[in-house]
Amino acid sequence: MEKVFHYIEENKDAFLKEWFEVLRIPSVSAVKEHKSDMIKTGEWARDFLQEKLGMSARLIPTAGNPLVYGESPKIPGAPTVLLYGHYDVQPEDPISEWRTPPFEPTILDGKVYCRGANDDKGQWCAQLCGMQTYLNAIGSFPLQVKVLLEGEEEVGSGSLSSFLDSNENCELLACDALLVSDTSAAGPSLPAITYGLRGVMSFELKLHGPNRDLHSGVYGGSVYNPAIALSKIIAAMIDENGKIQIPGFYDDVEPLSELERKAFAANPFDPEKNKEQIGIDAEFGEPEFTTLERRGGRPSFDVNGLTSGYQGEGGKTIIPAWASAKFTFRTVPNMEPLKIKAQAEAYIKSLIPPGITMELTYSQGSGGMVAPLDGKFIQAASAVLEQVYGVKPLYVRDGGSIPIVAKLRDRLNAEATLVGFGLDDDGIHSPNEKFNLDSFFNAVKTSALLWDAFANAK
Amino acid sequence: MEKVFHYIEENKDAFLKEWFEVLRIPSVSAVKEHKSDMIKTGEWARDFLQEKLGMSARLIPTAGNPLVYGESPKIPGAPTVLLYGHYDVQPEDPISEWRTPPFEPTILDGKVYCRGANDDKGQWCAQLCGMQTYLNAIGSFPLQVKVLLEGEEEVGSGSLSSFLDSNENCELLACDALLVSDTSAAGPSLPAITYGLRGVMSFELKLHGPNRDLHSGVYGGSVYNPAIALSKIIAAMIDENGKIQIPGFYDDVEPLSELERKAFAANPFDPEKNKEQIGIDAEFGEPEFTTLERRGGRPSFDVNGLTSGYQGEGGKTIIPAWASAKFTFRTVPNMEPLKIKAQAEAYIKSLIPPGITMELTYSQGSGGMVAPLDGKFIQAASAVLEQVYGVKPLYVRDGGSIPIVAKLRDRLNAEATLVGFGLDDDGIHSPNEKFNLDSFFNAVKTSALLWDAFANAK
Repeated sequence: MEKVFHYIEENKDAFLKEWFEVLRIPSVSAVKEHKSDMIKTGEWARDFLQEKLGMSARLIPTAGNPLVYGESPKIPGAPTVLLYGHYDVQPEDPISEWRTPPFEPTILDGKVYCRGANDDKGQWCAQLCGMQTYLNAIGSFPLQVKVLLEGEEEVGSGSLSSFLDSNENCELLACDALLVSDTSAAGPSLPAITYGLRGVMSFELKLHGPNRDLHSGVYGGSVYNPAIALSKIIAAMIDENGKIQIPGFYDDVEPLSELERKAFAANPFDPEKNKEQIGIDAEFGEPEFTTLERRGGRPSFDVNGLTSGYQGEGGKTIIPAWASAKFTFRTVPNMEPLKIKAQAEAYIKSLIPPGITMELTYSQGSGGMVAPLDGKFIQAASAVLEQVYGVKPLYVRDGGSIPIVAKLRDRLNAEATLVGFGLDDDGIHSPNEKFNLDSFFNAVKTSALLWDAFANAK
Repeated sequence: MEKVFHYIEENKDAFLKEWFEVLRIPSVSAVKEHKSDMIKTGEWARDFLQEKLGMSARLIPTAGNPLVYGESPKIPGAPTVLLYGHYDVQPEDPISEWRTPPFEPTILDGKVYCRGANDDKGQWCAQLCGMQTYLNAIGSFPLQVKVLLEGEEEVGSGSLSSFLDSNENCELLACDALLVSDTSAAGPSLPAITYGLRGVMSFELKLHGPNRDLHSGVYGGSVYNPAIALSKIIAAMIDENGKIQIPGFYDDVEPLSELERKAFAANPFDPEKNKEQIGIDAEFGEPEFTTLERRGGRPSFDVNGLTSGYQGEGGKTIIPAWASAKFTFRTVPNMEPLKIKAQAEAYIKSLIPPGITMELTYSQGSGGMVAPLDGKFIQAASAVLEQVYGVKPLYVRDGGSIPIVAKLRDRLNAEATLVGFGLDDDGIHSPNEKFNLDSFFNAVKTSALLWDAFANAK
């Protein structure tokens, strides 16, 4: 550990130089004009894997942006770890709100401001620097390390998802631990391991009534109003406690274990402060669960948008011809998206009133994931984080979804270990994105210590 | 009757000439540039009242467009009739869809095409020509005739409504019968008297949840979603039969009389054809009432528009910060708008869930009206229509609302007699508005016979 920390101290400037190099390439996946920047960024990462880490590395072409893949030699009797990250970034809009140039890394007050500083270049660059540290300060890897960086995470991970549909490709990526470097710490001095994510299923329900908007005076009371029909269906989706009313919906939901409930309870989350931050005077949800359990450990139903009839100034006395709602379910592991979809569709059908027809579109679905809290790689990572930060990490089941992580985990059948160093105020996806220098170097240190810990994990 | 019909036959061209003169003035109340056309139209009507009908007539200035008012002398022992109409018209947009110039009356196949041909210049011009016929073919009016034409009906009747707030003005307009010439016949050979209109009350309900759109993954299941709260409230407004669930809502609703139910049943309305026309496969509403009774004789609740969250292509995984609905009640006579408003507000308040606040805006309200079916003026007009058409008129309670008619009726305490000659296919408010020549001359004949009938009404 001494040698490792000493090496990092000596090479701080070199690490920053490397990180800043890749930050300067504007690899915005959402904007076609940046296509050549995507290649340039992929090549930069490939070269790093080859030159600095001695890996056999290459770009793997896809229908979209290439994947970067590299691996160190297999070590007999030792596990294999796959590091996942993404080299694409969010657009820099709105540019006018940036206080520093969005693609020129600028250090202010111990923080590096740049698009991608955290999400996700800062996170995986720190991991690569940690690997470099290990190789230079200790020696060759005690286990096989694979690195997979994709260039489409901000636009849905389409190419990587297709790539994973091939068994051959999954053999290439085969690993025991899936190390994901794209989440957050619990605070500047409080590390976290995200051991669970919810799944997400997105729908749009459109109800059709009359063939045109009708005069609500002439027809009111004699024709079913599609906006009322839609409201009745949405209203029937949850009870007054937020419990979803679709028959069979909870069939496969596993109860939270004692260990998990303890992990939720260990989070220094303050419900009063939370209410104040989001501006509500009362919380809501299943009374037998805490706020964090509701968010991270239980499924939920939300309407994301409603559209019907006249939406301008003043009024228009019509019965609208149609009404639509976008809605999502967040699911927890073990729930099968296709089963939930069939249950939801049947339930909605049963609620359609006379004179109304339905059109239900299912546009996206991915399951949730949860790693065993006592999994050996999670426990190994936990011990390293405690060494680096001086405190035990929080174990977090997060309410959000990273669909590609669930798919990687499922297809590779590996223990997902999500060790992130971001902070809530890093402004990912916003102007003035930043990554604290402390976050970056804590990540480098963690990474440098992780390989021995993983190799010896039991 | 012979003399009357003969006079009309002899003067057809003269009547058309007069009607076409006023049609050519583009009196679009919604468009400021037409301000001078409004005055010109008002002056045209005033001059007609003075010169052709020998009335004492004038323009009454208002904050908006002037009222046209004229009256014949009071006849001791005889009733007074007030004819109401409006001289403003709808905009001619979209001009490209007109097959003839919108402000040049053009006769095609027995129909006069022009903006305002029916609504409402054709209807009141025919009445004035009928009066002219009476004066020339029979003699002076056997009762006092008052004429009131407003220039803002298409933009909400604001000035006339304010005018009616003064008792002095109401004394000026005092009458026994309020004759309204702004509705429809039941068909080309089937006259109708509209003896009832519903009231209308318009609201907007906006529900506020968190102070910004929240990530539905991070927060879903722990925060009440305003779009779901809104749906729950709308869903609770009617039961599966369309019965409104607000406590006390039906307290003042009068049951339909036998006479009224007979009048509804006499309408040759075809539910199957109606369903086909509006494109629905099943009707809806209170099972103990017929379709026409639900529309014209019962209150109703309709959502006119819904807005919340993300409404674009694809999805956005948010809990929206707010959700809003525009909605209307149609009321029947005897229901008190302010009482209904208080009941609705209290009911909605009782349904607000934790973490949600409400903002309810009441933007417009007018009561419904119903005239006694056996009222003496209605019966007199009915007899005249039978003379002209050869069949008894239908008695119609219409589901729509003409707020100013209800106010005129209430403030003047007169028997409202709505005798209209429009047809459903006249395209009022649309391009290619027309009025059949037959409709126009049936209206002239009816008007010419009406004054004796009203004078002798018992």
